[in-house]
Amino acid sequence: MTTATKGDPLLRIAGGGLRIYDLGRPFTIGMPQSPNHPPYWHTLPRRHGDRVRADGGSAANDLISMGTHVGTHIDALAHVSQDGRLYGGGDAAAAGVGGRYEELGAHTIEPIVRRGVLLDVPAAIGERHCAPGYEITPADLETAVQRQGTAPEAGDVVLIRSGWGRHFDDPDRNVYIGQDSGVPGVSEAGARWLAERRVHAVGADTIAFERLAPGAGHAALPAHRVLLVEHGIYIIEAMALEDLAAAGVHEFLFVLSPLALYGATGSPARPLAVVTGA
Amino acid sequence: MTTATKGDPLLRIAGGGLRIYDLGRPFTIGMPQSPNHPPYWHTLPRRHGDRVRADGGSAANDLISMGTHVGTHIDALAHVSQDGRLYGGGDAAAAGVGGRYEELGAHTIEPIVRRGVLLDVPAAIGERHCAPGYEITPADLETAVQRQGTAPEAGDVVLIRSGWGRHFDDPDRNVYIGQDSGVPGVSEAGARWLAERRVHAVGADTIAFERLAPGAGHAALPAHRVLLVEHGIYIIEAMALEDLAAAGVHEFLFVLSPLALYGATGSPARPLAVVTGA
Amino acid sequence: MTTATKGDPLLRIAGGGLRIYDLGRPFTIGMPQSPNHPPYWHTLPRRHGDRVRADGGSAANDLISMGTHVGTHIDALAHVSQDGRLYGGGDAAAAGVGGRYEELGAHTIEPIVRRGVLLDVPAAIGERHCAPGYEITPADLETAVQRQGTAPEAGDVVLIRSGWGRHFDDPDRNVYIGQDSGVPGVSEAGARWLAERRVHAVGADTIAFERLAPGAGHAALPAHRVLLVEHGIYIIEAMALEDLAAAGVHEFLFVLSPLALYGATGSPARPLAVVTGA
Amino acid sequence: MTTATKGDPLLRIAGGGLRIYDLGRPFTIGMPQSPNHPPYWHTLPRRHGDRVRADGGSAANDLISMGTHVGTHIDALAHVSQDGRLYGGGDAAAAGVGGRYEELGAHTIEPIVRRGVLLDVPAAIGERHCAPGYEITPADLETAVQRQGTAPEAGDVVLIRSGWGRHFDDPDRNVYIGQDSGVPGVSEAGARWLAERRVHAVGADTIAFERLAPGAGHAALPAHRVLLVEHGIYIIEAMALEDLAAAGVHEFLFVLSPLALYGATGSPARPLAVVTGA
Repeated sequence: MTTATKGDPLLRIAGGGLRIYDLGRPFTIGMPQSPNHPPYWHTLPRRHGDRVRADGGSAANDLISMGTHVGTHIDALAHVSQDGRLYGGGDAAAAGVGGRYEELGAHTIEPIVRRGVLLDVPAAIGERHCAPGYEITPADLETAVQRQGTAPEAGDVVLIRSGWGRHFDDPDRNVYIGQDSGVPGVSEAGARWLAERRVHAVGADTIAFERLAPGAGHAALPAHRVLLVEHGIYIIEAMALEDLAAAGVHEFLFVLSPLALYGATGSPARPLAVVTGA
Repeated sequence: MTTATKGDPLLRIAGGGLRIYDLGRPFTIGMPQSPNHPPYWHTLPRRHGDRVRADGGSAANDLISMGTHVGTHIDALAHVSQDGRLYGGGDAAAAGVGGRYEELGAHTIEPIVRRGVLLDVPAAIGERHCAPGYEITPADLETAVQRQGTAPEAGDVVLIRSGWGRHFDDPDRNVYIGQDSGVPGVSEAGARWLAERRVHAVGADTIAFERLAPGAGHAALPAHRVLLVEHGIYIIEAMALEDLAAAGVHEFLFVLSPLALYGATGSPARPLAVVTGA
Repeated sequence: MTTATKGDPLLRIAGGGLRIYDLGRPFTIGMPQSPNHPPYWHTLPRRHGDRVRADGGSAANDLISMGTHVGTHIDALAHVSQDGRLYGGGDAAAAGVGGRYEELGAHTIEPIVRRGVLLDVPAAIGERHCAPGYEITPADLETAVQRQGTAPEAGDVVLIRSGWGRHFDDPDRNVYIGQDSGVPGVSEAGARWLAERRVHAVGADTIAFERLAPGAGHAALPAHRVLLVEHGIYIIEAMALEDLAAAGVHEFLFVLSPLALYGATGSPARPLAVVTGA
Repeated sequence: MTTATKGDPLLRIAGGGLRIYDLGRPFTIGMPQSPNHPPYWHTLPRRHGDRVRADGGSAANDLISMGTHVGTHIDALAHVSQDGRLYGGGDAAAAGVGGRYEELGAHTIEPIVRRGVLLDVPAAIGERHCAPGYEITPADLETAVQRQGTAPEAGDVVLIRSGWGRHFDDPDRNVYIGQDSGVPGVSEAGARWLAERRVHAVGADTIAFERLAPGAGHAALPAHRVLLVEHGIYIIEAMALEDLAAAGVHEFLFVLSPLALYGATGSPARPLAVVTGA
């Protein structure tokens, strides 16, 4: 009998070696997150030794309690509404009756395996990282495209590096949250630039994806409106992009398979950037 | 201005079209799961309309409470111990001190992008599905390999279809749990067969991956011992394999990126099987 | 130096000795409860030894996840609505906007220290316990009053023993839940009888307080409507009344201090019946 | 028909009117608490209107997720260990195996209905409130006893007012937590003074009951050791004592009925001080 050769070219390529960049953050108690969401907590209800079976085996297990918008995650289209309407025009209040968003919940986000583009904005504008509260403009995005030679195309996933991700592990979690300092990111104009390119999803290395002015917090989130509500473009937040940028990888196969949490407004995720190579 | 050509062959292949099979189950309240674990619950702390910002925007969010071994998930090596020892020989009780498994927790599972092989056992043995409590033997596995022409190789991920997944949506959740009926799967011998092939991970379409004798429940789980504790091979459970099998796809790029839940004994997941094609 | 004599007569009485009957159930994982509510779960995030301070001290702590209507609990007036209206006529849907019931939530239940009356119905009707699905009628209640000589007065708390509480510890939790068998209790007529007496609160030794017909589950709950919505009378459920009844105590100081869970629809509780005596 | 006279003197006294002081805090999301414990979260999985029964009735319910040492609560004897030993000398680590403290958990705290004494320390020492980080000494406690004429006796519950409770509602939750400022309370000497009087339980209007030096946090908690571990005296924390002190009530019937959370290290509570009067 014969063993199938790895006929599928995808497998042949994979067989030659893949390099995988983990774009997600570990989930730990106390990690920085928006205070608007239930915090991440993990416990071990059962530890090894609590119960030992007759055959000497023992299992440990977990209890997780968390909001879905903590740590690296993807926003479902049900997450944001504008003037009482969701993407597609449906009544946002009515959509939530019953305690879940049936039509636009996280369970409706198809697994993503698409071309991904990283726009390394600081590198493009000659900085180590964007300043707090800095607005990443369409001009900045264009500059990155030019410098890198990676133009986003329809259906792609575009990741925007601001450099803010370096604060994620700061012992003072408020630094990454950036309430007082402000946080860099695109604002409405940058969101429109992305929407014009008909991308499938966008992501950034900050909690809120878009620019937060110093002290403003989440008072206004125009990019969320433009992307989620007006164009049905998913937003991925709190990504880890430093390694990808440091490696100079600007184009890759982007993979994100959200948990199909029925009716939820988002899902925690661990996205990947995959390229060939050792 | 130049646009980068999709130089990476991975992207060229992807550009030609990919077919993605979702191997995960949606997470819903009341879904069938082992009673040993905290059940999955989801609520919307905030619904649209609860708080409307000055600019007319509103956001909804979630609270999730769950065990990690509910729904489709991957077991970390910290999940099971034998005679007080974990994979690698460490003291299992000591490893949990502090409330998390630092060395073998879910955060240590590298994202998986590897060759995957589906062994469609019922098809191989000429049945529509395996009987409850049926032990899938090495001979059955070999028969599937022969019939399909897909031999598992070192580093692969092997998924074993028993057909039991068809019960997942039964209104009586106890059917899928199979406490009284027993559940089909490999047992110790099948686990050794897999281990001999030095696979990276295995998965099945049942809650416990391995065979459960009628009425026995989880009293003895020898395959878990062989795979997790003795060989450090991950186990993926409660997978959705019917569509993959129905499509006759036995070889694919398998993708599973677990949530890096620090120190946890497992992670919920939504694995994918990816092949080229429209 | 002088020590105040226990001037307050309450303290003099207490000083002579009090007998306290615990009318609450322990909270354990797996205890019988309505499936409509998130189940009770408890874990120890931190156990002794996880962290030992320099001075040799160590603390353990808990994580509780639960619905409020599990185990012994009191329903707030926000719990039930009829035709879209709450007690007092307010719009029920509007009242919940924001994720909490500000006006009628559990935090508005004043601590209860009042005369309590136990109506031991089985004893009154010459049975050991009421049959499953048995409707406790106003005549039954009157018979108990007559037999005991304890007429409920305005402002009292009336507890109705059906005897169903004996099933609470049944290894098969479905017995106490009584979905198929039905559960004894008052229905609309008995609720009106209680309301006419302008009692402050009522309680029973069943999950749902009122009679459940075999197979009907919670399809219709007229007593809840009469008591909570029409008359603003609190309902206490899943009480432990066997000891109180066995001791022949039908009149007592009833004490229930609910947790002031802001905006919640109920609170877990551990009510007491207190009488003088050793 | 006869109505039983309220024969029990307790009921006669109660019939004359009782004044009830609520010594507990409402539970709200974001309330100040020690960061060592899972925070309090409440959501409404079901709101009115989510499901309307055929008879027009609808119910709303809750999901609570919380540590037990948040808000007003009582510490069980299982909460603290010293040099690996619990109260009574048992092995603390072994006691937690299985995920609950069977012998000294919250379920073993008997409902408390006892003489209570409030020692108003600021009033005794001529201040409006104790300074941050102030150690309440045995001399201070004696002065309060003298001034008030209320000496604690064996079996009593002693509540110590520092005045710190006035910070509970500060918009900056860190004020009440007092990490940097320190928090007033007894220390080891005061704890011994209480233990010598063989009181049943003690309480205070701070998170940690005992004095916290500025910046020290919970690094050392000698009063917990003396009271819980050495003498088996319960500790009640985060109490609301301002109203009781303002009313000049120093002696009362103290009532606290903890939730019988099996094997837990503490229980949320809503204690009461009860005296006769309108």
